[in-house]
Amino acid sequence: MTIQAALSEADKGLDASLNRLFDLLRIPSISTQADHAPDCRKAAEWLVETLKTIGFNASTRETPGHPMVVAHAKGPAGAPHVLFYGHYDVQPVDPLNLWHSAPFEPVLVKGPTGEQEITARGAADDKGQVMTFVEACRALKQADGTLPLTVTMLIEGEEESGGANLLPFLEANRDELKADVALICDTNMLGRGLPAITTMLRGMVGEEVTITAASRDLHSGMYGNAARNPIQVLCDILSDLRDGATGRVTLPGFYEGVPVIPEETRAMWRKIGPSDADSLGPVGLHLPAGEAGYTALEQTWSRPSCEINGISGGYEEKGFKTVLPSKAMAKVSFRLVGDQDPDKIRAAFRAHVQARLPADCSVEFEEHGGSRASIVAGDMPFLPPALKALAAEWQQEAAVIGCGGSIPVVTEIQHALGMNSLLIGFGLDDDRIHSPNEKYDLSCFHKGIRSWVRVLYALTGQAPE
Amino acid sequence: MTIQAALSEADKGLDASLNRLFDLLRIPSISTQADHAPDCRKAAEWLVETLKTIGFNASTRETPGHPMVVAHAKGPAGAPHVLFYGHYDVQPVDPLNLWHSAPFEPVLVKGPTGEQEITARGAADDKGQVMTFVEACRALKQADGTLPLTVTMLIEGEEESGGANLLPFLEANRDELKADVALICDTNMLGRGLPAITTMLRGMVGEEVTITAASRDLHSGMYGNAARNPIQVLCDILSDLRDGATGRVTLPGFYEGVPVIPEETRAMWRKIGPSDADSLGPVGLHLPAGEAGYTALEQTWSRPSCEINGISGGYEEKGFKTVLPSKAMAKVSFRLVGDQDPDKIRAAFRAHVQARLPADCSVEFEEHGGSRASIVAGDMPFLPPALKALAAEWQQEAAVIGCGGSIPVVTEIQHALGMNSLLIGFGLDDDRIHSPNEKYDLSCFHKGIRSWVRVLYALTGQAPE
Repeated sequence: MTIQAALSEADKGLDASLNRLFDLLRIPSISTQADHAPDCRKAAEWLVETLKTIGFNASTRETPGHPMVVAHAKGPAGAPHVLFYGHYDVQPVDPLNLWHSAPFEPVLVKGPTGEQEITARGAADDKGQVMTFVEACRALKQADGTLPLTVTMLIEGEEESGGANLLPFLEANRDELKADVALICDTNMLGRGLPAITTMLRGMVGEEVTITAASRDLHSGMYGNAARNPIQVLCDILSDLRDGATGRVTLPGFYEGVPVIPEETRAMWRKIGPSDADSLGPVGLHLPAGEAGYTALEQTWSRPSCEINGISGGYEEKGFKTVLPSKAMAKVSFRLVGDQDPDKIRAAFRAHVQARLPADCSVEFEEHGGSRASIVAGDMPFLPPALKALAAEWQQEAAVIGCGGSIPVVTEIQHALGMNSLLIGFGLDDDRIHSPNEKYDLSCFHKGIRSWVRVLYALTGQAPE
Repeated sequence: MTIQAALSEADKGLDASLNRLFDLLRIPSISTQADHAPDCRKAAEWLVETLKTIGFNASTRETPGHPMVVAHAKGPAGAPHVLFYGHYDVQPVDPLNLWHSAPFEPVLVKGPTGEQEITARGAADDKGQVMTFVEACRALKQADGTLPLTVTMLIEGEEESGGANLLPFLEANRDELKADVALICDTNMLGRGLPAITTMLRGMVGEEVTITAASRDLHSGMYGNAARNPIQVLCDILSDLRDGATGRVTLPGFYEGVPVIPEETRAMWRKIGPSDADSLGPVGLHLPAGEAGYTALEQTWSRPSCEINGISGGYEEKGFKTVLPSKAMAKVSFRLVGDQDPDKIRAAFRAHVQARLPADCSVEFEEHGGSRASIVAGDMPFLPPALKALAAEWQQEAAVIGCGGSIPVVTEIQHALGMNSLLIGFGLDDDRIHSPNEKYDLSCFHKGIRSWVRVLYALTGQAPE
């Protein structure tokens, strides 16, 4: 048994691996839209059937929402036990007219970087990443008849829609899911060709706020000025969330628990990370927004944020309508770092809205998820061999980085199962996840499979060849 | 020939009049939506055919947009010549799910006031009002074989969509359209059973503003804080349009040309007009918004306004999507009074936006109409007989009132044809124009027809009977 045999299987099987990924990408498993619930189940069942072909004992498990996929494959006695986590659900696809090909008809296209790109909703987030691990297991199994360690897989279907059912599921199935370390494949590399393990993730609080003024839509000629305009009320409330001069979030207590970034860390990030021009230039911007005095990278890796993710009210179509609407709605999210408390921040946001609400308006809040930031312990024993395995595959030192996104499962696995996580992913910043024309570089998929082959070996204590 | 004979014809013919109105209401002539252009033409052609049955020399006239309807009927030699203006186009119908019956399938329903209500898009604005005049002409013709004065009708199809083609049309057809006075039926009564002639109308400036930040939608985890959020930029810009403490519009020079309301006028309005509770209570509000120190009625009749009529950006559907959108859009309108200059106010608004635009964002503006406020000369000779005719029909003194809405045609008729307008309408504040379930009281339709019979007689110099 050698790593090279498994890597060779991964190379030979790449076309078949890609076909399987395409099959999964064709299932429109949008978890946040109720009419796609059958598609979510279909994706879960597809994974179960696929994992069975590699010898996993796999099944779907019911939850109050979309089903979980749980699968087990035993390795040699005494070998470590890993829990792999991923998600099969995807984001909505609107605005559909901006896609160059149908979001659920995956295609390979040559991108502006010259790379072959797997283009489809979910290509990177997270179906493509999940399949790097699945296909690595397949290659290992084909080379050796067994896996080098014991693998449990948990693939959920509500990561993009709040994930409320994950923590109860972890708690209810603690004995079955407990392992030595969790492996999560839902993050990015530091850049093209630059492997990385993410050790800092932001938490998140999501809120939907709807302001109601008049009991019906009014004519702005007849009532304009005299009747309260809920869009104006909402804009005032949202504008007040940030201090215009400093870019700081104004909620009282918001920065409690936000750690100061050590100067040496900032210096290290400036050395390894992209400059503002590198990170913002490709999306047509050049000035970091948010808090004054921080680079774009510092802001996304280590500072909390407040973003309006959606706003809606009145007449939004072509032309003009002098309506004074009854309601206006916004979706707001906060990204959390350090010890920021999601419950306190949600409460502070709601108090901020209530304090600015005119006496004859009403407000409704809808909660969309909440999680603390998570930090992987820098001294965990699995980190060094995993970094070495990545370096062997990419011929490039692997970095330890932060990530602006939120992967609540890291905290939840820590809380429910008492386990640390290793966040190893092969996405790139230009993958357009959550946007039209999401893609995953074919080379990331291929070398991602190869990387997992090496990492799984490395975690057994065997040095990478 | 007596007024009574014509009034009797109006009463006897009411069912047939209502059927004709229903035919017109069934045509979905939404002028602002391009796919309804054929319906706008259909409504124009329906009016031409209908006017021909009363002996009008009627035709459609092409414009760069929807066609105009022009019709002529000669009265006795020496009698005055009136130009009637109305519009056959209607507002969009969204949100459709709030309608209790289909917007273009008119029905009579008993409303909460006990009145029979003609319910359909356009019932009050403006098809029902236009048909009061048409049916009055029919009754006069049937009673007497001719009209008591010379009538020209101009019914346009772009009142709800900017009306850019009206002024050029008036100028190009000055000789044909010039008359002694214009009659416009597109306004409300002072209240149920309280007839009124509107002598003050607000002007309007409509603007659509679209802010673009990044060149594509981004993931708010990966880019939140670091990349500019155009919704936040837009909210800041819109929130800055009003001073929070005073409710005043902050654009430099905005209040230039706004007349002070004389104290005796305010006292008179307090006597004849609805209280804040009366005007705001029925729509579920109780506090006048806008400028501090003015009643709701003072604000809509005599103060300029700034309203956000629509806003849109990011993810607006059910659920949550942590997107940081590329664009955000708002539709903003200003209602003007006195001598406020629409061009100056549009320029001040655009300067306000530009001054607050981050250096790496861009903005696009789209103009949606602009008109000055209009004031009917209080000394015009046709005003007293018209007020008397209305009083005779409603058995109630007719009031001279203001209106918060904008009817640019008043200024345009003054400018292009050098004519004053009499604004006589039978709408009510609870007609829900521009909103779901628009209605027109059957009694307003019926007594509106009878009112025009009396007004047309009165304008010939014959005393109302």
